[in-house]
Amino acid sequence: MKTPVTVLGLGAMGTALARAYLAAGHPTTVWNRTPGRSPELKTERAATAAEAIAASPLVIVCLLVDDTVRSTLDGIDLSGKTVVNLTNSTPDQARATAERVTAAGAQYVDGGIMAVPAMIGGPAAFIFYSGVPGAFEKHRADLSVLARPEYVGADPGLAALYDIALLSAMYGMFGGAQHALALIDSTGGPAEPFTDQFLVPWLTAMLTSLPRIAGDLDNGPAGTAGSNFAMQAAAYENLVSTAAGQGVDPLLLTPMGELLKRAVAAGHGDEDLAALVRLLRTE
Amino acid sequence: MKTPVTVLGLGAMGTALARAYLAAGHPTTVWNRTPGRSPELKTERAATAAEAIAASPLVIVCLLVDDTVRSTLDGIDLSGKTVVNLTNSTPDQARATAERVTAAGAQYVDGGIMAVPAMIGGPAAFIFYSGVPGAFEKHRADLSVLARPEYVGADPGLAALYDIALLSAMYGMFGGAQHALALIDSTGGPAEPFTDQFLVPWLTAMLTSLPRIAGDLDNGPAGTAGSNFAMQAAAYENLVSTAAGQGVDPLLLTPMGELLKRAVAAGHGDEDLAALVRLLRTE
Ligand SMILES: NC(=O)c1ccc[n+]([C@@H]2O[C@H](COP(=O)([O-])OP(=O)(O)OC[C@H]3O[C@@H](n4cnc5c(N)ncnc54)[C@H](OP(=O)(O)O)[C@@H]3O)[C@@H](O)[C@H]2O)c1
Ligand SMILES: NC(=O)c1ccc[n+]([C@@H]2O[C@H](COP(=O)([O-])OP(=O)(O)OC[C@H]3O[C@@H](n4cnc5c(N)ncnc54)[C@H](OP(=O)(O)O)[C@@H]3O)[C@@H](O)[C@H]2O)c1
Repeated sequence: MKTPVTVLGLGAMGTALARAYLAAGHPTTVWNRTPGRSPELKTERAATAAEAIAASPLVIVCLLVDDTVRSTLDGIDLSGKTVVNLTNSTPDQARATAERVTAAGAQYVDGGIMAVPAMIGGPAAFIFYSGVPGAFEKHRADLSVLARPEYVGADPGLAALYDIALLSAMYGMFGGAQHALALIDSTGGPAEPFTDQFLVPWLTAMLTSLPRIAGDLDNGPAGTAGSNFAMQAAAYENLVSTAAGQGVDPLLLTPMGELLKRAVAAGHGDEDLAALVRLLRTE
Repeated sequence: MKTPVTVLGLGAMGTALARAYLAAGHPTTVWNRTPGRSPELKTERAATAAEAIAASPLVIVCLLVDDTVRSTLDGIDLSGKTVVNLTNSTPDQARATAERVTAAGAQYVDGGIMAVPAMIGGPAAFIFYSGVPGAFEKHRADLSVLARPEYVGADPGLAALYDIALLSAMYGMFGGAQHALALIDSTGGPAEPFTDQFLVPWLTAMLTSLPRIAGDLDNGPAGTAGSNFAMQAAAYENLVSTAAGQGVDPLLLTPMGELLKRAVAAGHGDEDLAALVRLLRTE
């Protein structure tokens, strides 16, 4: 028989996780604070989180925030369980949850889901995991039902760190793209042809410079690509004033302009984008 | 004989442009404010901008900023010339330059270079052009020596608008990636494996949602992908506090957090990223 699984939380993501387990033939018990959510899931519904947890050796937690996880698990006996927490958390929150869950008798694995709900069970989704290596290995196949598992280390905070690094990168990219689309929108032009013909190919091409930036970070600068900060800081002024001229709020642009000015002021006028990563470090 | 070309400006980019014309066999005259720059270019060097302009029917301008272009061309007779200005400008600056250059007797084409110098003459580079359509068509082949030309309209400000939209998107993406790399750097881990295995594939996957966002903008929302703003705003707090916890300056993250809060406050808690584009419009 496939491993019985409990899913705590039937929000958009928890529902997708439970659906994937049902589709894969796992006996699946679900619980949600508000009863009756996602009625299309035909499966065991527990009346309390404690009952849901008692039903399966593997407990998947996918609630809104860390506080929700804390209040939901508080006081429940977790002896012999493996608790896999896929709620978005900071590294410190994940480490604290690991302590509490371990004290309550379970083995703890933290996870960061790199997918939207529609991608769960599909080929492009992956999930970072960290925590007790044996617990992860024991359930590797069970966790593979959801998405490709990427185990990054025993420190339970590491999955959250990797998750949050990728989310930070994603919000930067989306913010830039949204600003670009607002500029196109301001001309009255349609957004789709610009996106298909220019925006996506351009960002795809620019992505190829990230490995070089990472290499510069690891090994020291290997020479610039001919785009010095002094020139960039000058051109950046044009980005900000164009936004204002087109009736687009420049707020998403402001901090990078700040950072370019810092780079020039710190005497990095001849350097390149890798130097900005160092300027972000405050410690 | 190939069209004689004049290049004003031998910075990193002007040098790459002149090199491409020389390689393609165009008689090429160059001028730079500071003499002796890029001595490896074996070609005609004019002592003044006016002499350089007199030498060719096609004049390519690639100086630092709009002010530089203004002071360089001021008072020079441009009768019968086609002036192609590849200096980064705002749409309004491009329109004002078009007026001055036209009053001095030339036909004006503005351009925005979507490449770093090393890409000039290569397959991935392209340049947005706008301005007098006949002048662009007459020199399409000459301009194709530099990069694939993308003509976007007669309004001389349009190339600058498209250019600045793509640069804004690029800085957003780079900013996000730099923040992510600063987080990885803060763990003492090397940046390259993270970049190759996770960062580039993740951003590449996330790029595929941009056409959907553009479609929502053009046609109204077609339903969300199951990532509501209320959840996103909650997770975003974790991005900011993780940065602080790792000794990474959260300045690049701040404005998107602001925008997500605005979206929730404006009652868009159930909507999706396309709604943010509208929130950026101030007019
Ligand atoms: N959706 C995505 O694209 C995505 C992607 C990656 C990671 N995540 C993460 O997955 C987690 C869930 O996201 P989601 O999209 O499913 O969010 P959601 O649709 O907003 O669902 C939130 C869930 O949390 C529960 N909850 C909220 N407050 C609670 C409380 N005080 N006590 C008990 N339960 C509570 C809700 O129960 P009620 O029904 O009773 O309100 C619901 O089950 C979040 O940490 C999110 O960051 C989501
Ligand atoms: N490099 C890139 O990646 C890139 C990409 C796309 C677009 N662009 C745009 O291309 C243009 C040139 O960039 P670049 O990389 O070549 O910059 P750069 O290497 O810093 O060169 C600046 C050029 O401007 C000249 N200049 C500066 N102030 C001047 C003045 N007051 N009068 C006359 N000339 C002056 C400099 O002459 P001196 O030698 O006398 O100082 C030099 O030729 C900029 O508008 C930039 O935004 C660059």
